[in-house]
Amino acid sequence: MSPKYAIGIDYGTESGRALLVDVADGREVATAVYPYSNGVIDERLPESGVRLEPDWALQDPNDYIETLKRTVPAVLKESGVDPADVLGIGIDFTACTMLPVKKDGTPLCQLAEFRNNPHSWVKLWKHHAAQPEADRINAVARERGESWLDLYGGKISSEWFFSKALQILNEAPEIYHAADRLIEATDWTIWQMTGHETRNSCTAGYKAIWQKESGYPSREYLAALHPDLVDVVETKMNCPISPLGAKAGGLTAEAAAWMGLKPGTAVAVANVDAHATAPAAQATLPGIMTIIMGTSNCHILNGAKLARVPGMCGVVEDGIAAGYYGYEAGQSGVGDIFAWFVENAVPPLYHEAAKQQGVSLHKYLEQEAAKQQPGEHGLLALDWWNGNRSTLVDVELSGLLVGATLATTAPDIYRALIEATAFGTREIIEAFTRSGVPVNTVVAAGGLPDRNPLMMQIYADVNNREFRVIRSALGGALGAAMHGAVAAGEAAGGYQDIFAAEKKMGGLKDVVYRPIAEHTKIYDQLYADYSTLYTYFGRGQNDVMKRLRALRRSALAR
Amino acid sequence: MSPKYAIGIDYGTESGRALLVDVADGREVATAVYPYSNGVIDERLPESGVRLEPDWALQDPNDYIETLKRTVPAVLKESGVDPADVLGIGIDFTACTMLPVKKDGTPLCQLAEFRNNPHSWVKLWKHHAAQPEADRINAVARERGESWLDLYGGKISSEWFFSKALQILNEAPEIYHAADRLIEATDWTIWQMTGHETRNSCTAGYKAIWQKESGYPSREYLAALHPDLVDVVETKMNCPISPLGAKAGGLTAEAAAWMGLKPGTAVAVANVDAHATAPAAQATLPGIMTIIMGTSNCHILNGAKLARVPGMCGVVEDGIAAGYYGYEAGQSGVGDIFAWFVENAVPPLYHEAAKQQGVSLHKYLEQEAAKQQPGEHGLLALDWWNGNRSTLVDVELSGLLVGATLATTAPDIYRALIEATAFGTREIIEAFTRSGVPVNTVVAAGGLPDRNPLMMQIYADVNNREFRVIRSALGGALGAAMHGAVAAGEAAGGYQDIFAAEKKMGGLKDVVYRPIAEHTKIYDQLYADYSTLYTYFGRGQNDVMKRLRALRRSALAR
Repeated sequence: MSPKYAIGIDYGTESGRALLVDVADGREVATAVYPYSNGVIDERLPESGVRLEPDWALQDPNDYIETLKRTVPAVLKESGVDPADVLGIGIDFTACTMLPVKKDGTPLCQLAEFRNNPHSWVKLWKHHAAQPEADRINAVARERGESWLDLYGGKISSEWFFSKALQILNEAPEIYHAADRLIEATDWTIWQMTGHETRNSCTAGYKAIWQKESGYPSREYLAALHPDLVDVVETKMNCPISPLGAKAGGLTAEAAAWMGLKPGTAVAVANVDAHATAPAAQATLPGIMTIIMGTSNCHILNGAKLARVPGMCGVVEDGIAAGYYGYEAGQSGVGDIFAWFVENAVPPLYHEAAKQQGVSLHKYLEQEAAKQQPGEHGLLALDWWNGNRSTLVDVELSGLLVGATLATTAPDIYRALIEATAFGTREIIEAFTRSGVPVNTVVAAGGLPDRNPLMMQIYADVNNREFRVIRSALGGALGAAMHGAVAAGEAAGGYQDIFAAEKKMGGLKDVVYRPIAEHTKIYDQLYADYSTLYTYFGRGQNDVMKRLRALRRSALAR
Repeated sequence: MSPKYAIGIDYGTESGRALLVDVADGREVATAVYPYSNGVIDERLPESGVRLEPDWALQDPNDYIETLKRTVPAVLKESGVDPADVLGIGIDFTACTMLPVKKDGTPLCQLAEFRNNPHSWVKLWKHHAAQPEADRINAVARERGESWLDLYGGKISSEWFFSKALQILNEAPEIYHAADRLIEATDWTIWQMTGHETRNSCTAGYKAIWQKESGYPSREYLAALHPDLVDVVETKMNCPISPLGAKAGGLTAEAAAWMGLKPGTAVAVANVDAHATAPAAQATLPGIMTIIMGTSNCHILNGAKLARVPGMCGVVEDGIAAGYYGYEAGQSGVGDIFAWFVENAVPPLYHEAAKQQGVSLHKYLEQEAAKQQPGEHGLLALDWWNGNRSTLVDVELSGLLVGATLATTAPDIYRALIEATAFGTREIIEAFTRSGVPVNTVVAAGGLPDRNPLMMQIYADVNNREFRVIRSALGGALGAAMHGAVAAGEAAGGYQDIFAAEKKMGGLKDVVYRPIAEHTKIYDQLYADYSTLYTYFGRGQNDVMKRLRALRRSALAR
């Protein structure tokens, strides 16, 4: 029998990427990327040039289809694989990235009458203009004692589905009413591939407050938010929710033609980038946390039981893999804090030294910082440059550095910032373990682990746990392909479920970062101080960070 | 009658400088500088190359005499002034800068038998190796309930006279016992000029725990410190204490020849740089604070009454000008924090922009920071990069920055650091006013005020007080010359007292920095937060800064 293949397509913020893998062992055969022609739309709408408000971030749904048309034929061509040997296809996406569409799936932004209205376009995950709506969602939920609020760390984000939907209703009721469906872009893309709408448990659960047992928020709650929202679920969202790995359907002839695949090729239900990474990291069983480390950290973890972990992002049954409760937590600033530091706070001396060595400034600072003993720089930081997602769920927090002296150097601060993000991860892991959701080992994925071994060792030392590293540099796309292989099914040469798939197709690197006892001892002391400051500045003992943000806003408004 | 002149000689850390001024109006006629040939001795002794321990800082007394020989003839030559028209001479010095000498004044370091022993040399003010001795001095004083401790903010510094004297006794008893006198370098230099020993109220008071009413610490206290110290006052320090502005004597023929002056020219008793600056700033009357702003800030203020102000450096009757209680406070890091920042935390972009504009990086950052409204950067800092002198008297504290985001820039932080030092000054001013020592206006002196108008405006806004600026760029030297004119006396064409002298010879620039009400309102809010953090981190609620220093020390010791 000829080898069989699956394709995973990863929809990122700036581009889409296809990955063709061998179903037998997950070997990555070919990949192709398509930079979205309209990228992130955050200043002016294409064509009309309509200017956007600050904090807006949109995408063009046509870029999702173009990704299919450009990247899949490219990987087929590069690999020489016969389309008949492609068993299945899956996608993973940023989320919540949502759009209003007509009942035939046509995005409102593709209709001339709505094209100049920003609310008709796709609201990207990092569209941050729905904060007033999120505030109202949270206030009404607290007031009414909605039981689901605790499942989302006590706070619904302005990035999530109902915040964005309510913003459309508030600011552009004509768009809201013209929309037959409000849908995640990941589900919409699957719709375009299979010809019918499906919805997946991951985005429904984590982004749209859906729970397997109780469904979406009640009509009463929605009516309390806004009278017109009372029937939003029945009229614009109703659709069976499929667990991850389920088959959405087969490729339509049209979609197959876009890609050069066979009509009827199995398509998995939609997925989210972070959650799709877990099986690629062989981390779907309880006790193994996947941390996707990049500009921010996303923590994905299955548990056998439902627990309410304070300050997590969400817990969703079947949210990562069917049969388990999937937990998600996050750190809103990691790589972007290091990038901020490198761009804004490193003197020329180090820039020149890095250039002379022919390494990046990040790498040079890491090398210098690696020469130090834990505790040597005398610094401690709170890693809140971009707020705190878990466990405080507070975007108004900000970064702190303590311990600076006239002898403090740039590598000192760089190391302290890495450590601060490791302490932030420890806060999350300790919150899970205190709540009865064990974390035994960790698998790191994403862009940072390969580039920064010092960071990995510090994370192992601070968290007193082994850190392993995912084999694939494209964990989301690989996970999506694995779900495609599951959608195809065992009989067709795929897999029965994602657990079977991850044993064969997922994988880890050989490197293992093991905690060094002497370091862990010192980091335990530093972590105690981190936790004290975490509570003092993060839980209302001293709200100076919020007052500083308020002063800044009012100064900028003058 | 031909114009009359006075000469002031300022002994700094790296050099000595003479200033020749017109007695009628303080006009600065000529100046000359001598960089000490042995500079600050902090690695190896001259000639022998004996290596010094860390934290040591010595000077060579010969450099003080060389300063006289090089600079005074230079100013006479440059100005063409007839030595007969020089009425008086005064000096000001760093302090506590002290040395062991024989009874004829010969420094022990100039005797072959002691020259290779570091303890025979001048211990410079910033010699920081006597911390164990200072700890003992404080512990014994607290234990015995010594009433003078409160007059020095509750803590005697490792920089001060008895700390240094006890270190000599502990580590080099042969030097201690061979020394007939232990003396401030400023008094020793006057001795070399007049041929006999005098001691001044300023260094005795602020550095050697002398009080006009009670004298030096008691024999019992000194014996409790160390049995051999019991008679140190009677045997090595006894000498009448002269108030500032008193005449020490006339120049000896030898000293006059060094300088090209007339033998018998009036010489004022020794003085200290900061305290000599007050009359040059027309700030000797109660309610007018002089702040000498440089690498650190020194606050000098006369009061009509004796008050115990928590955390000040000291209060000494006649310590600044006869007839008043002279108060001193300090901020241990100001200009050196800005210098640290500029060297260690500013990215190339700003270096290049400054170069392109042809201004210093300090100036460029100041210009950028000046474009902001108060509160706009969203930051707050504790200015403790070099510890805190007043009001916490704690070298173990360290710097803190809070409010950082991914949008924070170098000019933001630069401005926050300036503001932090202004808040630090406000803590001091408020401590004075709470204790019944009013501060109505402030005169800024030293190197920073001219260079950084933004800083001056921020100080005025934060402190809600007018800030004026001393006319002279050489305030210490001008003040010393004024004391010389007082030593000469009114009959000889000088002045009856320093108050009369300051009216004619002191002076202010035209510029007045007045608080801007709208800014003050915002800074009041920021100061409230500064004070909360000041107390939290500085008064034992959270000793994280000390734990970080301890971890750093133990890491460096491994």
